[in-house]
Amino acid sequence: MTKHDSSSILTVGSLAFDTIQTPAGKAESVLGGSVNYFSIAASFYAPIEVVGVVGDDFPQSHLQWLSERRIDVSGIQIVRGKTFHWVGSYDQNLNEAKTLSTALNVFETFQPQLTEKHKNAPTVFLANIDPVLQQSVLNQVHAPGLVACDSMNFWITGKPNELKETLRRVDILSVNEGEAFLLSNENNILRAAKRILQMGPSVLIIKRGEYGAMLFTSRGLFIAPAYPVESVIDPTGAGDSFAGAMMGYLAQAKVHRDLAHSDPDQWDQILRRAVLAGCVMASFTVEDFSFHRLKRLENAELVARQNALIQMIRLG
Amino acid sequence: MTKHDSSSILTVGSLAFDTIQTPAGKAESVLGGSVNYFSIAASFYAPIEVVGVVGDDFPQSHLQWLSERRIDVSGIQIVRGKTFHWVGSYDQNLNEAKTLSTALNVFETFQPQLTEKHKNAPTVFLANIDPVLQQSVLNQVHAPGLVACDSMNFWITGKPNELKETLRRVDILSVNEGEAFLLSNENNILRAAKRILQMGPSVLIIKRGEYGAMLFTSRGLFIAPAYPVESVIDPTGAGDSFAGAMMGYLAQAKVHRDLAHSDPDQWDQILRRAVLAGCVMASFTVEDFSFHRLKRLENAELVARQNALIQMIRLG
Repeated sequence: MTKHDSSSILTVGSLAFDTIQTPAGKAESVLGGSVNYFSIAASFYAPIEVVGVVGDDFPQSHLQWLSERRIDVSGIQIVRGKTFHWVGSYDQNLNEAKTLSTALNVFETFQPQLTEKHKNAPTVFLANIDPVLQQSVLNQVHAPGLVACDSMNFWITGKPNELKETLRRVDILSVNEGEAFLLSNENNILRAAKRILQMGPSVLIIKRGEYGAMLFTSRGLFIAPAYPVESVIDPTGAGDSFAGAMMGYLAQAKVHRDLAHSDPDQWDQILRRAVLAGCVMASFTVEDFSFHRLKRLENAELVARQNALIQMIRLG
Repeated sequence: MTKHDSSSILTVGSLAFDTIQTPAGKAESVLGGSVNYFSIAASFYAPIEVVGVVGDDFPQSHLQWLSERRIDVSGIQIVRGKTFHWVGSYDQNLNEAKTLSTALNVFETFQPQLTEKHKNAPTVFLANIDPVLQQSVLNQVHAPGLVACDSMNFWITGKPNELKETLRRVDILSVNEGEAFLLSNENNILRAAKRILQMGPSVLIIKRGEYGAMLFTSRGLFIAPAYPVESVIDPTGAGDSFAGAMMGYLAQAKVHRDLAHSDPDQWDQILRRAVLAGCVMASFTVEDFSFHRLKRLENAELVARQNALIQMIRLG
């Protein structure tokens, strides 16, 4: 059995080129994809192993850059053809992306293949992909101590039963407000959360864009504000980098679902801090196109915003 | 000089009939108006003096009910004619009201006339009325220790210079997010706040509907979540009752602008609690039409939600 860092995270999802129009400007074929954002964000906290697929048009230099920062890219298959390409836009309401076109390309026939090292990962994050693929990953891993997943409208409406099967097998679900309403068939956030918590996950995080995030656990509700920034350039990847920092925070603290049972108060408190870490990371992501801001982000900046955000909710 | 309770609040604004359509139903000619909501909410914390005007169609029984709960209604003029009547509706986005018609009626010729008792009020809240009338009140009062005001799009666009004159004379401004953008000519909340704080108020509260409120002081930013409720029936009056509880909380604590100079940290901390009290009060207001929910609200319920809301932002 491969020796494993007890704080590492296995993640499966998309690597992509994005073409994006926002009120602040346009970016043509820039690097994107859920596990790209997730793993860069998470790597500030913990070692990451990525499983995914790219075409032969994907820059080797980026894979090299990832591998230089605790991100194991050996699980990224490079196959003949073009990389997944997403074209989207945002109007003044930066909280919601409009998909203009999606070219799955090599992603269309993607089948996650896990190595022995991947299979022993202590923490697993299933990014927003086909729930059938999410389950294929869960069928391959041995006994992760913590499993989290994301999803989106496309799967909620397109593969509801497959998604519900995934949900029965995860500890943490992270979705945005609109997705929570669609998944629960409710239009109130408390009622939506109640329904979703009956579907399997014991922890639910509802992301609310510029308004922050809500965390639901057995101990109740935590409401985290977004870290406010003066200039939002591109919200793409905010949710994925939120999840990356949150899961990275949990992995760094080496907490798994056991803690939810042995010490639910401590579990709840660590989750609260993890959600704040997610909010802080997302605030950097939106300050530039692609993950340009994350690539030049320094630890000191991260710590400064974390402390500032805590002050913004502190009562004396 | 009339003896004065040092915690009382003088407020000037509208008393009205409202006809309201929301996704939850319709209410025909129910009691409303900014100072009605404000003073009922504030009366949970402090004695209130109301200056306003109603027509002879206004129910005497309501004035009687107000006067039974620390609300001095002697400043409410009853004149021949009809009471102000607002007709509005909300679609699924309950954060924004659409005005269908406004019949000012007796409010059209309203001129606030303050008695000696009113003039000595230690705290003044100028509800959302013509900024010329707001200044007329400020010209009559002697030396209030704290002055706050509200406004709305109608005055921001219709009487910008008059409103700016009012702003130079107040300590606290409370507006909603859209109004803050309009007033500052900015579309980012941090930049909007910076601009507005240069216009006069040293404290700015930006209300964000179901997402809570932001408080800006010289000590920085506090972000308060709304208290989430399972059923929102009618958001009318949420902002006014928010302001009522917030100002009531400050009046009860007997804090004035002096404290901002002598102990800015304590001032900031008391304001944070006051904003949370505002969020809690608003959460009750929206649970029914008119102020039906506030009229049956008990102190124990208020305290329970305050404690619960504090738990929702607490870090261990």
